[in-house]
Parts: sequence; C-alpha cells; structure tokens
Amino acid sequence: MQVDGQRFLADLHKLRSFGASGVGKGVVRPAYSEADMEARTWLKGRMEEAGLRVETDAMGNLFGLAEGPSLLLGSHSDSQPEGGWLDGALGVIAALEVARCADMPISVISFQDEEGRFGVTTGSAVWSGQLDLEAADLLLDHNGVALAEARRVVNPTGEVDPAQFTGFIEMHIEQGPVLDTTGERVGVVSDIVGIRDMKITFEGQQNHAGTTPMHLRRDAFQAVSEFNHALAERFKNVVTPATVWTIGHLSLHPNASSIVPGKAVFSMQWRDGDADRLVRMEQIIRALAQEIAQARGMEVSFGPMLGLEPVHMDARLRRALETSAESLASGAWRVMPSGALHDATNVSRLMPVAMLFVPSIGGISHAFEEDTDEEHLVLGLEVLAGAVAALHG
Amino acid sequence: MQVDGQRFLADLHKLRSFGASGVGKGVVRPAYSEADMEARTWLKGRMEEAGLRVETDAMGNLFGLAEGPSLLLGSHSDSQPEGGWLDGALGVIAALEVARCADMPISVISFQDEEGRFGVTTGSAVWSGQLDLEAADLLLDHNGVALAEARRVVNPTGEVDPAQFTGFIEMHIEQGPVLDTTGERVGVVSDIVGIRDMKITFEGQQNHAGTTPMHLRRDAFQAVSEFNHALAERFKNVVTPATVWTIGHLSLHPNASSIVPGKAVFSMQWRDGDADRLVRMEQIIRALAQEIAQARGMEVSFGPMLGLEPVHMDARLRRALETSAESLASGAWRVMPSGALHDATNVSRLMPVAMLFVPSIGGISHAFEEDTDEEHLVLGLEVLAGAVAALHG
Repeated sequence: MQVDGQRFLADLHKLRSFGASGVGKGVVRPAYSEADMEARTWLKGRMEEAGLRVETDAMGNLFGLAEGPSLLLGSHSDSQPEGGWLDGALGVIAALEVARCADMPISVISFQDEEGRFGVTTGSAVWSGQLDLEAADLLLDHNGVALAEARRVVNPTGEVDPAQFTGFIEMHIEQGPVLDTTGERVGVVSDIVGIRDMKITFEGQQNHAGTTPMHLRRDAFQAVSEFNHALAERFKNVVTPATVWTIGHLSLHPNASSIVPGKAVFSMQWRDGDADRLVRMEQIIRALAQEIAQARGMEVSFGPMLGLEPVHMDARLRRALETSAESLASGAWRVMPSGALHDATNVSRLMPVAMLFVPSIGGISHAFEEDTDEEHLVLGLEVLAGAVAALHG
Repeated sequence: MQVDGQRFLADLHKLRSFGASGVGKGVVRPAYSEADMEARTWLKGRMEEAGLRVETDAMGNLFGLAEGPSLLLGSHSDSQPEGGWLDGALGVIAALEVARCADMPISVISFQDEEGRFGVTTGSAVWSGQLDLEAADLLLDHNGVALAEARRVVNPTGEVDPAQFTGFIEMHIEQGPVLDTTGERVGVVSDIVGIRDMKITFEGQQNHAGTTPMHLRRDAFQAVSEFNHALAERFKNVVTPATVWTIGHLSLHPNASSIVPGKAVFSMQWRDGDADRLVRMEQIIRALAQEIAQARGMEVSFGPMLGLEPVHMDARLRRALETSAESLASGAWRVMPSGALHDATNVSRLMPVAMLFVPSIGGISHAFEEDTDEEHLVLGLEVLAGAVAALHG
C-alpha cells in the first residue's frame, strides 16, 4: 500500500482551518460547536470521495463505512476548548488516507466529544454501550447546557452495528514527553493505563502559629508532607518506571500564614497498566496515611475512589504495529503505555483494539503550542498503513 | 498589699457582660463597637472610683492616671470579632484591682484595637509613635470602614504624656498550651518573639498527570514537600525548643487532581526571641529553597519579608515578677517567650516593659472556648501585686 504523505498533510492542515485559533497552530473546535460541525461536514465529503458510505449516529459520531466486514481506523475531531491541531485530528486524517489507499476494506470513524465538553470520550462511550444515551443527555457543559440540547445540531442517519468491524486501531500524538525526550519516532501502545483517584483528608488541630510549640502541634500540612515523602520510599519496590502518581490538588484550612493548619484535603491519583499494581498501591496509600495520622494523633479519612481499569491492547493488532514500526523505524521506536485515556478504551468493549503514538514536541498537549514534526506525522501514517497491509496479508 | 480576688473576679465577669456572646464565656466586642464603647464607659467609672483621673486619647485608649510618676499596668479591652473573655480584659481588670490596693502610684491603661479590626495593636502603636494617627486613619476594616470614621464614637479628653510612667507591666493569658501542658501556673515572659514572614514561590512545569513520567516532572508540590522535609533537618542545630516555624498557607496551580502542579506559592513564617537566630534561619531557608529549585530545574522566588524584631523584657521588672512568682508558686512557674504580639511590644519604645502569663486551658484563644481556672486568674493577680510592691519597696 502506498500512502500519499503530502495529501495526508494537506488534509490535516485543511481540518485545522475549521476553528483555527490564530495562535500558532491551535484550534478552538469543541464538540457540537459551529467549527466542529463544519469540520464534520467537510470530513463527510472526504469520506464519500474515498468511496465510503457515511453514517452519523444520534451522538454525532461520524462513520465512513466500507462494504462488509472491515477494520475500523480513526479517532476524534473535536478539540479542547483551546486545543492543539493534532489531538484527535491526526488519527482521523490518517485513517482517511489509509482507507483511500488500502486494498482491503477500511472504515473510518471520527468520534464526538472525546475532549469532555460533557463527559470524557462521551461519543465512544455511548456507541460502545458504556453509557446510555438517556443518561448522557442529562450531562451539562460548564455553561449549564445539556448534551440533549447541544446535539440537536446533529442530523443522525442511523446507528452503526459494531459487529461489522474486525478491530480498531487509533493513531494519536503521545501527549507526553517520552518519545520526544528519547529521540524515538514511534510508540506502540501496550496498555491504556488504569486510574485510581481519591481525596484524602488529614484533620489535626488548628492553632496559633506563634504560641504553639512545635512538639505540641498537630499540623495537617506536616502530615501531608510526611505522607508524600514516605510514599515515594514505600512505592520503590512496587512501581515500574511507567507508573505515575500525583498530588495535584491541596487545600489547607484555614490557609493563613499565622495559623497552624488544622485540616488538609488533597487528591491522590495513581495510574498504571497493571490492575494488581493499582491495588497494591492503594493498600500502601491507605496504610501509610493511617500510620501517619495515628503517630501524630490526627484523623484521616478517604473519599470515594474513582477507578478505571487498565485496557490491554490486542496482541495480534499490536504485533502488526510493532513489525511495521521495526521495518520503517528500526531501533527508533518503543512499546509504551498510554497514560491518557482514549476512545480506544471504550471501543475495547466491542472488539480488539490497538494504538500507535507519534512524538509530541516538548510533551505539550491540550494547548495551542501542541505540535509534531511533519516527518514523524508521515512516518506514523506509514507505520499504520504497513500494519494494516500485514493484517490483511 | 492585699488584693481582693473575689472583687477582681466579679469585675472580670462584669466586663464580660458587655458583648457577652451567649456561647460559653465568649464575647463579641470588637474595637469601637457599641459593646466596646459601653465597656469603656463602665471602666471609666471604675477607674474614677479607684481615685484615678481618666483621660481618653484620640484613638480611644483609656487611661486611669495616678498623680505624679507612676507604674503603668494594663492591656486592652477590645476583643476578636468572636473572642474569649480573658484576652486583654484580664490585664485591664488586674491593673484596676492593683491600683485600688497599692500603696504606691499605679496607673491603668486599656488600649484600643489591639485585636486588629484596623491593624494589629493599633491603639498602642499610635500612642507609642510607631504609627502616625494620620496614617492609621486611612486603615480599613473588612467592611471597608476607615479608622477615621470608626473612631468618631470616641470623645477624646487629651493626650497622655508617657514620660510620667516608670514602666509597664502587662498581665495576659498565655494563648498557647505550654503552661496548661506542664501543669505550671504562672509564666514570666523573657521576650516577645520576633517574626519573619514571607511568601516563597516554586515554578516548575505544569503537565498531564497521566502522560508525564515521574523522572521528567518538575512538580512544584514535590519541591515544597522536599523543602519542608529538609528544613526540619537543617534547623536542628540552630533552633531551641521555643523556636517555631510554620507553612500555614499553600496554593497550588492549577490545583487539579489530573495535572502535575506547575506552580506553588506558600507562606514561610518563623519566630524566635533572638534576632541573630532569626537571621540564621532566614539564610538556611533561602539557601535550601535555591538548592532544591536548582536540583529540580525549577525557579524559586521570594516575596517581601515582614520583619518584627524581638523585644526583651526589662531585667528589673522581670526579676520582680520572678521573685513574686517563686514566692507564691514555688517550682510551678517558668520563664518563657511570648509567641504572640502584645501592646507591650509597642510600649517598649517608650519605657521598660514586662509581661506575666497565666495558663490557657487547652491552649485555646481567639475563640469562645478560651478560659482559665479561677485559681490561676487570682494567683496571677497576686503575683502581679507582689511584684509591684517589691518594685516600690
């Protein structure tokens, strides 16, 4: 299969023109916005030119369908409120180019509302049955607009039966610094990591910061700091270099320079591709927080835990991507987890899925500055096309 | 000199009745409020009954003056917006009782706005020349009312020349847990500690909490946590058990659970009775923050530093209090710094000052629950009276 890198880049730039921000290559194209709907109308035309039959479902997911059983490629074409030009768009346009050139049936998808105007990966969540349309319709955006209201701009043509697809491959920018830092040019995803996220609260004693001696304090910030410090030690023999954990939110009470904080609420989030490791980390987190609270005469409480399980990429699809990557970028690619969620997470409920990454310059995403070298964009397209050809062969 | 403990307690309860909160023994008597002005009218009557000549200055500081050179005793009678019944009131009523009973000339002062409706220790700051009345008049309370406006309820009778006073002794509750924890009954203050307070900012890199590996993060919260942890180690050979330091305020940006914090702003406050130690601590703080920022590839910046110098109590006045404490509470008193600011800080610009503490139950102050055993209140009064008698003898 011979893809046309220049046509692919031209289409990618054309898609950017819908909602182009005027700042760098950034776009303003949130789900159901005028720019998003114009982009989908243009995409529909491109799909038809490629010989695909177009269907739009009730959510506004846009399918370009090959006849009979086919492999599904794609991603999403909505953007963050102020987003980059490649996040989602890359996978859709790469799918379109492969569908044009392939000798086998290839369908193309652009999912709707991946970027979370209403939820996160809302379009693929509804299509995969992860989320009921009736429940989704009640979701509100930041302005209080319901999804039911927003999706009135969609003209649905019918629902699309997932049984016609033999698998799904999503090409995407990495949205992280790993490939850019190592100089590697392609990443084949092993797993989309699972997430655990919960609030932890330490309650001690609010006191005067002048009159309370250090040894009589029950300082909630000191408890958080000790917890954070000790956690890295306890994790050492449990985590891998790909495991991440983050304290991203912290509120002290009353948060005044002359008052020893009596209460601290913070977010504890951890991600890994292995479900057992997520459980072991949770055990360490809870035990450590309780130890620290007890030693300091303080209370600790845990909020409800958000849990998303890891998704393993399909072995056959992944092997095809790895073989293609090794053939086109020998020694300059790696197997890596995806630390971010993707539509592929939802689609994995319906069929085998795999993912392919290209580098993000500086690891930057969800910002106007997001970019990738053209050479890497085209290489990613070629690796995808090579894998598709091998799967058919 | 024989003081009357029952009369003293009755007056203390009477003063509480002005602005009594209905919650425990608490009071609501902020500076210049109706309750505060009624309390001062009542105090004026009590001073006159004690044979003192009353003067009110432009700020509303209320003096009961003995003839000729005299020793000045007292504190303040305004309260926190929701305050305890003893903070300030105790020192004023004790002064009144000693003035009634003493064989020597004793004057009494109730300073205005010690609790910071407009500033902190505003009344004594203006009287001592620390703050110009014109500048003070521009200060606003939380509702935007200017001091110039609020003090219109005062009927000033004239200014009071500090040269007539040979010294100042302020009796006060400890507002901390030291005496209550050790079971000691009286504290003689060695120094009112100096304070340093500044904001420190670490700036790293805001990142996606899923896609950014731990070793590539420049996480501003991690910098604060490491700074806090290492600081305790570096302080070990510099501080005394009376030294305190506090991180009471912390803001992370953007403060979201899925984002590695790119920026952290926090308050660093430290207090000690020794000016050299405050300087050594500052050097350690600045050097450590810079080291941590450099090691993590981050920026650190320091806000303007608030600096209040320590005030040493006068040796002669302090010795009189110590001798009296040992005679009335042998082995059950201690020399200790005051970790809180007091009117005595300002008055020390004009004359020798000393301070006497009684225990605060549970260390609680600036709250309705603030309280002290009656036995300790009366003992404090007797120690004060004993010291005054010895100074005259």
